[in-house]
Amino acid sequence: MGKIMLTGDRPTGRLHVGHYVGSLKRRVELQNTGEFDNIFVMIADAQALTDNADNPEKVRQNIIEVALDYLACGLDPEKSTMFIQSQIPELCELSFYYMNLVTVSRLQRNPTVKSEIQMRNFDTSIPVGFFTYPISQAADITAFKATTVPVGEDQLPMLEQTKEIVRKFNSIYGDTLVEPEILLPDNTACLRLPGTDGKAKMSKSLNNCIYLSEEPDAIKQKVFSMFTDPTHIKVEDPGKLEGNTVFTYLDAFCRPEYFKEFLPDYENLDELKAHYTRGGLGDMKVKRFLNSVLQAELEPIRNRRKEYQKDIPYVYEILKKGSEKAESVAADTLRDVKEAMKINYFEDQELINAQAEKFREGEAKEA
Amino acid sequence: MGKIMLTGDRPTGRLHVGHYVGSLKRRVELQNTGEFDNIFVMIADAQALTDNADNPEKVRQNIIEVALDYLACGLDPEKSTMFIQSQIPELCELSFYYMNLVTVSRLQRNPTVKSEIQMRNFDTSIPVGFFTYPISQAADITAFKATTVPVGEDQLPMLEQTKEIVRKFNSIYGDTLVEPEILLPDNTACLRLPGTDGKAKMSKSLNNCIYLSEEPDAIKQKVFSMFTDPTHIKVEDPGKLEGNTVFTYLDAFCRPEYFKEFLPDYENLDELKAHYTRGGLGDMKVKRFLNSVLQAELEPIRNRRKEYQKDIPYVYEILKKGSEKAESVAADTLRDVKEAMKINYFEDQELINAQAEKFREGEAKEA
Repeated sequence: MGKIMLTGDRPTGRLHVGHYVGSLKRRVELQNTGEFDNIFVMIADAQALTDNADNPEKVRQNIIEVALDYLACGLDPEKSTMFIQSQIPELCELSFYYMNLVTVSRLQRNPTVKSEIQMRNFDTSIPVGFFTYPISQAADITAFKATTVPVGEDQLPMLEQTKEIVRKFNSIYGDTLVEPEILLPDNTACLRLPGTDGKAKMSKSLNNCIYLSEEPDAIKQKVFSMFTDPTHIKVEDPGKLEGNTVFTYLDAFCRPEYFKEFLPDYENLDELKAHYTRGGLGDMKVKRFLNSVLQAELEPIRNRRKEYQKDIPYVYEILKKGSEKAESVAADTLRDVKEAMKINYFEDQELINAQAEKFREGEAKEA
Repeated sequence: MGKIMLTGDRPTGRLHVGHYVGSLKRRVELQNTGEFDNIFVMIADAQALTDNADNPEKVRQNIIEVALDYLACGLDPEKSTMFIQSQIPELCELSFYYMNLVTVSRLQRNPTVKSEIQMRNFDTSIPVGFFTYPISQAADITAFKATTVPVGEDQLPMLEQTKEIVRKFNSIYGDTLVEPEILLPDNTACLRLPGTDGKAKMSKSLNNCIYLSEEPDAIKQKVFSMFTDPTHIKVEDPGKLEGNTVFTYLDAFCRPEYFKEFLPDYENLDELKAHYTRGGLGDMKVKRFLNSVLQAELEPIRNRRKEYQKDIPYVYEILKKGSEKAESVAADTLRDVKEAMKINYFEDQELINAQAEKFREGEAKEA
């Protein structure tokens, strides 16, 4: 059996550079290796609704933004099936049956759910749909028989839940579902890129994200106001790298060739870091370099996005075709699942015959 | 808008006289009034699986038993749509979206769920599917736009949950779903018929149920060994009616005409009770009368069942046709629900046009 990848994003806003280095860039690389028989990229609108039920418009308006960002980054509809979660009803049915295989206390112990509940200030008023989303995620992954799920380390407990469901299902109903493997990012700086203000969480309301669709001026302005080392006051002061957002971004984005192009005084990032650490290198010089790097990285993405923005109906057409393909795969899995659970009664001639026989025998015994 | 009824049973065993007087008999009467535009009778296999996930065979084998009992009691496929829950995928999708409208703590407060959890000794290992079944039940009811749900008083909290979901959905997404009304039984003896041993709960393992398909000898044997008044030892002793199973069954089953036929010494049940209470009436005489009554009530049911048992494929055909009809109604509701939530993107030309316009304007402003 070949390798199948499933990945996706919640459509609650445009994607930013954190999404890019954390997962999008790698997805495109993996797509282009040709190693995967199938790649499914899901716009998780139904999951986004679990904690945005009273603001469906936000989710609805952002599907196109995420799709544009996907295409802009180089996801290719010929190679990756991009689809919208809510358009695949089979996922709800799978969730429904998986819910019988997980206990309430097991969900309560899920650390990702725990911390997300905290982050969203839900306390006891968690919507049931949000509480149960690890099960829904298991449906998403298994529906496509995904072998590979490229996500961050924080998603490990979610993958573990999926594996548990797969094992339990297979042990009760017979081998049907495929156990997925997590594929962790290889660059640690990319694991969780901070906001431009140095805060761990990027968010629209904090205005600390650089979006993939950001215009050059805005990128420059955000880089120039970036959080660095607050104790690095004079140029000659030694500077700290730890918690220095500019260097974290360079770790994530810089490629050796950018030095030749934009900062030929240095051979590579290590040399630049050494100079900064011993003192004598001003923040502005580093910021100008990072700006050049980000402009170089984001320009082709932004330009591709603008091309797609000119033909929105075509982008919806891509999503529609992708959703049709995804649905047909999920329908095959659901058929297997229902067959394994033996709840496909009307197609089960054996059941009907055996029961007819049972009642005939009962009648004969009585007579 | 006309009246629509939804009702159903979990297929975990043959139906017994408790089901009959508690709901089946009334269903048939309601069916035959012609007052309802539509009557949906659901065999709730998916719900039964929420706490029988590891024993799907039990559920699978009992679907036909419940269907036979339905037909035997006089449910008529021309007037009532009998269908199997798992064959209506739309119900899972509705559940999925309703789960966003209910909090975990709200479910925890549901008294019916609380007591059923206790009854099943689940404690903290409640399957999520079982925990969330009030939501799934709301999907069942609203999918058919049911106005009337004939259930016992113990189901009031479930109906309340459905109403809350309906109100919340309609307030967020606009008027779409119909609020159902509960229809309580009018005969209190029928509310919860005890087992033949006087215990509140009828169960196969206690061997204290009289099934609708029971043979005459077995009925007689179960009636003759029924729990009565343990202090009523000699015939001349005064007897108690309270907790006296034989009289509870008579309350539920006896019709005035049965006295003329089987016990002409008495005018009616009140006279019989008065004699028993003042003393001088032996248990055996009352039991013989109850036996006659039950034989008279159950004979036509058993005979009709035997006719249907001869053609099991035909019964499956009835369920298949019913499921097809039920699915088409549920699909209409789901379409309304998705339209109200505006998650029917590909059909939403307005959305696509507005977004195309938005990006054209953005482009123009920049240029």
